[in-house]
Amino acid sequence: MNHAARLARLRRTLTKQNIPALLITQLHDVRYLSGFTGSSAALAVTPRAARLFTDGRYTAQAAAEVQGAKVEIGTGSPAAPALNWLAAQPGATTAAYDPAHTTVAELTRLKAALPEKMPGKLRRRFLVPLEAPLVEPMRQVKDADELALMSQAALKGCKLFHHMLGFIRPGLTELAVAAELEYRARLLGAEGMSFETIVASGQRSALAHGRATANRLPRNGFLTLDFGIILGGYCSDMTRTVYLGKPGARERAVYEAVLEAQLAGVAAVRAGVLCGDVDEAARGVLRKADLADAFSHSTGHGVGLYIHEGPRLGAGQQNKLLAGMVITIEPGVYLPGQFGIRIEDMVAVTRTGGEILTPAPKALIEL
Amino acid sequence: MNHAARLARLRRTLTKQNIPALLITQLHDVRYLSGFTGSSAALAVTPRAARLFTDGRYTAQAAAEVQGAKVEIGTGSPAAPALNWLAAQPGATTAAYDPAHTTVAELTRLKAALPEKMPGKLRRRFLVPLEAPLVEPMRQVKDADELALMSQAALKGCKLFHHMLGFIRPGLTELAVAAELEYRARLLGAEGMSFETIVASGQRSALAHGRATANRLPRNGFLTLDFGIILGGYCSDMTRTVYLGKPGARERAVYEAVLEAQLAGVAAVRAGVLCGDVDEAARGVLRKADLADAFSHSTGHGVGLYIHEGPRLGAGQQNKLLAGMVITIEPGVYLPGQFGIRIEDMVAVTRTGGEILTPAPKALIEL
Repeated sequence: MNHAARLARLRRTLTKQNIPALLITQLHDVRYLSGFTGSSAALAVTPRAARLFTDGRYTAQAAAEVQGAKVEIGTGSPAAPALNWLAAQPGATTAAYDPAHTTVAELTRLKAALPEKMPGKLRRRFLVPLEAPLVEPMRQVKDADELALMSQAALKGCKLFHHMLGFIRPGLTELAVAAELEYRARLLGAEGMSFETIVASGQRSALAHGRATANRLPRNGFLTLDFGIILGGYCSDMTRTVYLGKPGARERAVYEAVLEAQLAGVAAVRAGVLCGDVDEAARGVLRKADLADAFSHSTGHGVGLYIHEGPRLGAGQQNKLLAGMVITIEPGVYLPGQFGIRIEDMVAVTRTGGEILTPAPKALIEL
Repeated sequence: MNHAARLARLRRTLTKQNIPALLITQLHDVRYLSGFTGSSAALAVTPRAARLFTDGRYTAQAAAEVQGAKVEIGTGSPAAPALNWLAAQPGATTAAYDPAHTTVAELTRLKAALPEKMPGKLRRRFLVPLEAPLVEPMRQVKDADELALMSQAALKGCKLFHHMLGFIRPGLTELAVAAELEYRARLLGAEGMSFETIVASGQRSALAHGRATANRLPRNGFLTLDFGIILGGYCSDMTRTVYLGKPGARERAVYEAVLEAQLAGVAAVRAGVLCGDVDEAARGVLRKADLADAFSHSTGHGVGLYIHEGPRLGAGQQNKLLAGMVITIEPGVYLPGQFGIRIEDMVAVTRTGGEILTPAPKALIEL
C-alpha cells in the first residue's frame, strides 16, 4: 500500500488548515498513514516532515514496514518523545491531538512531558484538540489497494458461508458452528475474526447480537450467521439467515420483506447520495410491510481497519456517500419470542452505484 | 458472583474517601461491579445508592444480570443520563470520573450534558478526575468465585496444551496449529481467546510476540505456544515451549536456565512480597547463566477480566503482592537468529505461597 502518499496528503491538509504540528497516537491511524503494525507507536506530523516513534521490540519491524516517515526508537511511551520532537520543529507554536482518542490521563502526561525550557505561556497553550478528525475521513474513502484487500477478505467470507451450508445441521450447538466457522477462517489465512461471531438460531435469531451459545440448532427455525474476518488488518462483515426445515408462510413473507429491503438499500447506494436516504430506502420497504418497528437498528456502517467506522447509515443522516467508501447494508427484523432475520452485504460505493463485495446467495436457503 | 457485595464495598470506599458521587463508564469495571455484560452502559454510584444506565437493546439482559443497582433504560449514550442522575443526588457537589478511561472528547460531552439549571460555578467544578483508580485495585484481588472460574479457564488451557502435543508435527504451518488450538478452545466452551494466539517456531521462537504465520514447523527446533481462553469474561494465559526433534546441548542448557528461572519466580510468590523481588528471583537465575540480556521483558502481570492488568512484576517494582491476586510468571530468553524459550504459568497468590493454576508439564518435551 502507498502509505507515503497518504502521509503526503495529510501534510497538505495540515498546510491548508494552518495546523503546524499533529500528534497521532491511535494505532489504526498510525498504521493507515505509515504502514507500521506494532502495538506501541506515535506518529508526529508537520506540513514538512513526519516521524514515527516506537520502542526496541520493534526496531526490525519498523524498518521493514514504515514508509514516508523516519523512525526513532526509544523506551517507554512513544507519545512523549513524539511530542517533544514536534515542539522542536520550526514554526510549531502549537500541536494538535485527537480528543476522541486521547484520555484525560494521557493528556495530563503529555503536558507534563513538554520540554522544561518551554516558556509557561507557550506550554499552557501548546496542546490543542483537533476541532474535527483529520485521518478518519481519509480512512473512510478506500484506495485501490484497500478495495482489493477488502474484496479479498469479503470473498473469503463468502467461501466460509458456502462451507458452512454443508456443515450446518439440526442438533449441532451454536458454539460448534462458530468453532467450525472460525477454524476454517484461520485455515483460509484470517488473522482473526472482525468481531465475536454471531450464531443465533430458532427464537434466539430475534436477538440482533446473539453470541453463539450451547443451544442446539432446531429442526425447524431460522439461523442467523453474522461474521467477518481480518485480512491484512482489514475487516470483512456479512450476514446471512437460512432456514432449517420448512418455513411457514409467515416466516417466508418476513424473509422476503427483509430481502426486498436489503436489495432496495443496495440499489440506493451511489456517490453523492445521503446516508439517511439509503437508510430510508431499506426502512421504507419494511414500513410498507408493517415491520418497521421490528427493525431496531440503522441500515449500515462503514468498514475498514475498524469493523465499525464512519459513515453511519441511520435515519435522517445528512452526510453524503463518497466514491471509495465501503459500507454495509444490513436491514433486519426481530420478533421477540418468534424469530429474527438479517441480511447483510459489504458494498463499495462508486460514482454509478454500489458494488457488492459479498456475492453469496440471498434467496432463502432451506437446509 | 456476588456483584452486590462489590458495589457495597465500593460505596464504603466512597464514604471513607469523601467522594460523594462516582461515574463509571469502563465496561469491565461496570461488569465487575454489577454483573452487566452488555456493550453499552454507565454505572452511577454514591455512598448510598447505585444505578446502571443502558439502552433498549439490553432491557431483558440487564434485568437478568444486574445486581445491587437499579436499572434505567434510555436512548443514546448512557453516560449523560448517569451523570445527570448523580447531579440530582443529595450531597453530590462533585462527581468523580476515571481519567484513565475517559477521553478528552467524552469529558467535553459530559460537561455539556450537565443539567442546564446547574449554576455556572458548580458546573465548572462538578466533574473531578479520580486521583487514584478505585475499582482496578479491587479487581486485582480476586474473590472465591473469580478464583474458581479462573482456575477452570486455566485448566481448560492445560487440556488444550495436552491436545496440541498430539497434534503438533513438523511440516504443519503455525497457522494450522493456531487454528486447531482455537477450534478446540471453542469446543471446550471458550467465548474467545484472551489475545492473538502466539505460535512461534524455529528461529521465530526468538520473537517474544510471534503471531502465527504460514511458516512450517521445523524438523528440529523450538516451538513456543502462548495462548489463553476467555471463560465467563475471565482470561487465562499460559506459555509452553517444546522441541521438535532432538535438542542440542546449548538448547537444552538454555531451556533448563529458563525453567529454573520460572520455578524460582513461582517459589518467590507470597502475599506481602514486593513485585520487584519476584522479578529478581527469576531474573537473577538468568543473570547467573549469563542470559539476563536476552530476557527483554518483565517477569509477569496480573490477569483477570483483562489479559493484562495490575500488578506488573517488573524490575524494581515496589508494590506488594496481595492474597487473591492472580499473576503470571513468565521469564523468557530470546536469542535473535537462533531460538527463543518462554515458560509461563498463571499463579494465585496466597498467604503462604503461590498456587499454580496451570499444572501442565514444564520439563522439556521432545516431539
